[in-house]
Amino acid sequence: MVYDVIIIGSGPAGLAAGVYAKRARLSSIIIEKEYMSGGQILNTYEVDNYPGMPGINGFDLGMKLREHCEKLGAEFVTAEVQKVALAEDGQTKLVETETETYQTKTVILAMGARHRLLEVPGEEEFSGMGVSYCATCDGAFFKDRVTAVVGGGDVAVEDALFLARGCEKVYLIHRRDSLRAAAVLQEKAMKDEKIEILWDTVVTGIQGHEQVESIGLRNKKTGEERKLSVDGVFVAVGNEPNSKIVTELLHLDKNGYISADETGTTEVPGVFAAGDIRTKQLRQIVTAVSDGANAVTSVQNYLNSH
Amino acid sequence: MVYDVIIIGSGPAGLAAGVYAKRARLSSIIIEKEYMSGGQILNTYEVDNYPGMPGINGFDLGMKLREHCEKLGAEFVTAEVQKVALAEDGQTKLVETETETYQTKTVILAMGARHRLLEVPGEEEFSGMGVSYCATCDGAFFKDRVTAVVGGGDVAVEDALFLARGCEKVYLIHRRDSLRAAAVLQEKAMKDEKIEILWDTVVTGIQGHEQVESIGLRNKKTGEERKLSVDGVFVAVGNEPNSKIVTELLHLDKNGYISADETGTTEVPGVFAAGDIRTKQLRQIVTAVSDGANAVTSVQNYLNSH
Repeated sequence: MVYDVIIIGSGPAGLAAGVYAKRARLSSIIIEKEYMSGGQILNTYEVDNYPGMPGINGFDLGMKLREHCEKLGAEFVTAEVQKVALAEDGQTKLVETETETYQTKTVILAMGARHRLLEVPGEEEFSGMGVSYCATCDGAFFKDRVTAVVGGGDVAVEDALFLARGCEKVYLIHRRDSLRAAAVLQEKAMKDEKIEILWDTVVTGIQGHEQVESIGLRNKKTGEERKLSVDGVFVAVGNEPNSKIVTELLHLDKNGYISADETGTTEVPGVFAAGDIRTKQLRQIVTAVSDGANAVTSVQNYLNSH
Repeated sequence: MVYDVIIIGSGPAGLAAGVYAKRARLSSIIIEKEYMSGGQILNTYEVDNYPGMPGINGFDLGMKLREHCEKLGAEFVTAEVQKVALAEDGQTKLVETETETYQTKTVILAMGARHRLLEVPGEEEFSGMGVSYCATCDGAFFKDRVTAVVGGGDVAVEDALFLARGCEKVYLIHRRDSLRAAAVLQEKAMKDEKIEILWDTVVTGIQGHEQVESIGLRNKKTGEERKLSVDGVFVAVGNEPNSKIVTELLHLDKNGYISADETGTTEVPGVFAAGDIRTKQLRQIVTAVSDGANAVTSVQNYLNSH
């Protein structure tokens, strides 16, 4: 059979697309490589910014989103997609897993992204227990506490400014002697009395008991090692979109994201991108679910005109 | 005092903006003209497409969104905004109600839109009881039933095509002898065996007991009157954005919407639009809450660079 739409990935974007696709009575499947749905939120201890569900646990929210899909009869396939390609007719899309090739009129790419890791001892252990990869998501939990942001780009400096509004003190830790961030952000950060920039410095490890208590630092120029007391570490060294299955189909931006506006429209008619995988200002659960809904509307518009 | 941000309107977009603004520790107020928050969803009997809350009552969802804001300490002001203007410095924004003028660095315009009414007897009585203004929202409740769509533009024809996938039969009722909708949509609708177009026809009234059972029709050319049995009526005769308080500040599109992309950025720096009031593909709760989050991010970017 040829599906109306195949959704790849079942984080918030894919699951919202699943809800809208079922309600639009499109024939559809959702392909997810993990046994659980939810994507990155599964590892989020507390989500306090999904409107209407203050303080929900990330795992629970993932379950709720999947249950919503299942209640409407969405069909899930557990498999890892290897590649998305066009059939010889130039219109039908082929979604290839290890064992099957599915045919579909349209595809919604919702494979998400993953944050780059510092790759230091203690990082994984304290993930969600003081180590965070998203200041917008978790910053509010650190009111009047001491935090460190690791990185030197726009996001790192924005995170530091964001945290400084609530935290007692924010260290901005950067491995070089200058920031990559926009000049205006740098100026703001340097003027902010709560922010202290530690130059030429790398994090060597993260320590604590149950929660983060300190981080190890090394100055790259002097070789000096020391320990710094902090309650939280925000890692802002970049994200990697999970876009490798479409590298031959679509042009990706320099960071690997799929160029698409809020409608999810890509350069290939009938192929749409939703959630963290596309170029956008704000990568959050709430923007991902919106993308899923928008992508299904775009699918319907495509089907109505083909 | 000069606020960081004033949010006007407390439908889903305004309430999501409230959540994000509080979490970003911005000084803010939300101004709402009604005593209740929620906007258009307050009158929605069942919302089945807000991901994670299948089948929630619109009123309850409105309450949950407002409670989320209040839990974070958001401050609400009950007043009707008359006008948003720039102060003499060209930067500060003035938000004028009947009794006060508030000063703020930024504004999020989230006043929403309202659907145009047919203005026939029974319409108000059966609103939510078979009369709907949003096929994407409510169409799934009419599986295997008979429905009518009133209108002749793109939205009306898209609604008819959408409904035809689940309904037993769909009447498309249009007061003229040709549709305004795009040619490709018209073709699809005319080919669809479940869709019957009633030309030159107006709805004279809506009847039923508890739920819609029939509509009255009049042929404008012959004057013939008749009754048609239907289970649901989808009114698709346009929307009116609540944008009159910014007509002097911003250029509005021909339908009165504020031109803004997903970041909410308008032509006036520091003034952002979120939710149904802006130009966009899909006006839904889920896209509105996303807009609220995005607008606050845009506010932060503005504050970081000013």
